Amino acid sequence: MPSPLSQFLPAGFDPRRPVALIAGQGRYPALVVEGIRAAGVPVRLIAMDEETSPELQAAFPESERVLIKVGQIGAMLKALKRFDAGYAYMAGQVSPRRLFSGLHPDLKALAIMATLKRRNAETIFGAIAREIEDIGVHLLDARAFIDAHLATPGAMTRKKFPIDREYLDHGLHIARESARLDIGQGCVVRKGTVLAVEAYEGTDAMLTRAGTLKTDDTLFVKTVKARQDYRFDVPCFGLKTLDTMHAASIHAAALEAGRVILIDKPSVLARADALGISLLGAE
Amino acid sequence: MPSPLSQFLPAGFDPRRPVALIAGQGRYPALVVEGIRAAGVPVRLIAMDEETSPELQAAFPESERVLIKVGQIGAMLKALKRFDAGYAYMAGQVSPRRLFSGLHPDLKALAIMATLKRRNAETIFGAIAREIEDIGVHLLDARAFIDAHLATPGAMTRKKFPIDREYLDHGLHIARESARLDIGQGCVVRKGTVLAVEAYEGTDAMLTRAGTLKTDDTLFVKTVKARQDYRFDVPCFGLKTLDTMHAASIHAAALEAGRVILIDKPSVLARADALGISLLGAE
Repeated sequence: MPSPLSQFLPAGFDPRRPVALIAGQGRYPALVVEGIRAAGVPVRLIAMDEETSPELQAAFPESERVLIKVGQIGAMLKALKRFDAGYAYMAGQVSPRRLFSGLHPDLKALAIMATLKRRNAETIFGAIAREIEDIGVHLLDARAFIDAHLATPGAMTRKKFPIDREYLDHGLHIARESARLDIGQGCVVRKGTVLAVEAYEGTDAMLTRAGTLKTDDTLFVKTVKARQDYRFDVPCFGLKTLDTMHAASIHAAALEAGRVILIDKPSVLARADALGISLLGAE
Repeated sequence: MPSPLSQFLPAGFDPRRPVALIAGQGRYPALVVEGIRAAGVPVRLIAMDEETSPELQAAFPESERVLIKVGQIGAMLKALKRFDAGYAYMAGQVSPRRLFSGLHPDLKALAIMATLKRRNAETIFGAIAREIEDIGVHLLDARAFIDAHLATPGAMTRKKFPIDREYLDHGLHIARESARLDIGQGCVVRKGTVLAVEAYEGTDAMLTRAGTLKTDDTLFVKTVKARQDYRFDVPCFGLKTLDTMHAASIHAAALEAGRVILIDKPSVLARADALGISLLGAE
């Protein structure tokens, strides 16, 4: 049975043990802190230099936060122990490139790097997750405590969803097949034709490209990996994507319900309504 | 048993009946004319205004060619009858957009257009093919008479193919799955990661995009549609694609053997060797 605090917490979650938040960029980590505090669970911050927002750092007393440089895995593990954290939580983007070739890998990071045959977000975060769990800290599902910000089934915005069921199903099929093939997690379709598939270039570049092709009846579909590890790299949908969609004249998006995080949801829905964009939670 | 003139001719092909070539842009139609003439088969030209090269038009006596405007399907059918053509052959690109919303649709074209629920290269060319076959003219496989220009199995260029079998297989898998899903017919991969998938944007845009991401070990794979109709829209690979690959620092391509046309093959292979690009025919 899921914890009453969040449906994404593990059975037997102990709300007295601190959750250490390893925070990347943007508003996502702040939403998590709000959620954890609202649930009455103690929270500590592991902030990353030039990544974590200064506002979020300022929201913690000095004794409840540490600042590490990107790539200092050893320092991160030490902080988890110092905080006596029962749980860790990764939220907010850190470019995997920067994690290693970026700034200040410590010895621990170099040791991990040496074990990886292939280096991508999945293998790097996977290796970090193992290190965290190895010292007895439970790495949480990155949707925990932010249940209210997830995509939910059906229309989430005011306007009627403008895409026919047939074409929506086609888009979902293409996005899911792309995910299954490990190509990516998004596509833009129009009346049964695939205008763009997201691979390495990222969502914004794909939306912009698709926007140059057609200006009506286009649909953006965002799904999750076929074997999504919800402890990291969970797909997010935020204000920037809305603005990119608007610039590309794409006015409908289907997001997998219960899987895609809206950051933050009230702001995203309000802006979508203001821009005339329809958002659907798809199942 | 295939005709000795070309393995792509139908059984019972009658080499005394004229082949009418409906010619679009570029060098492809000229290669076909060379092939048909070398086989000793009579050939007539249906040229399209502002599409078919003036050189090709000049290669036919006036009585053996007609000039129509793009979209004049009725005029095209009339020319086939006037030439007493036993066979028709479509070669060279004509943008499907231009075919209808473009220039001069005649009544026949308007009538066809009205019957199409969805308009794309496949449905438009399919409808034209039906009109041609309905007047008793056999529309040939667009690889007929140019057997020598098709991709062949194995290395086609001098340099050793630089991509490991494992990563080649991954690229072929992604390209074929994309084709099966009707996304497109090409992708760029690198060591098991998909850098780009071609959808509506076309090959050159995809290659250029992939080129901005990584500069080593990248592989371009070009395949055919899952249900490829070889009477039209057969995938071609030419000098322009080579130049785009070179500019994008992509130095290896796998092309489906027997299915992708190199235009023209001796020039393409010579230029590939000069640019240090390896071409493989994949099976």
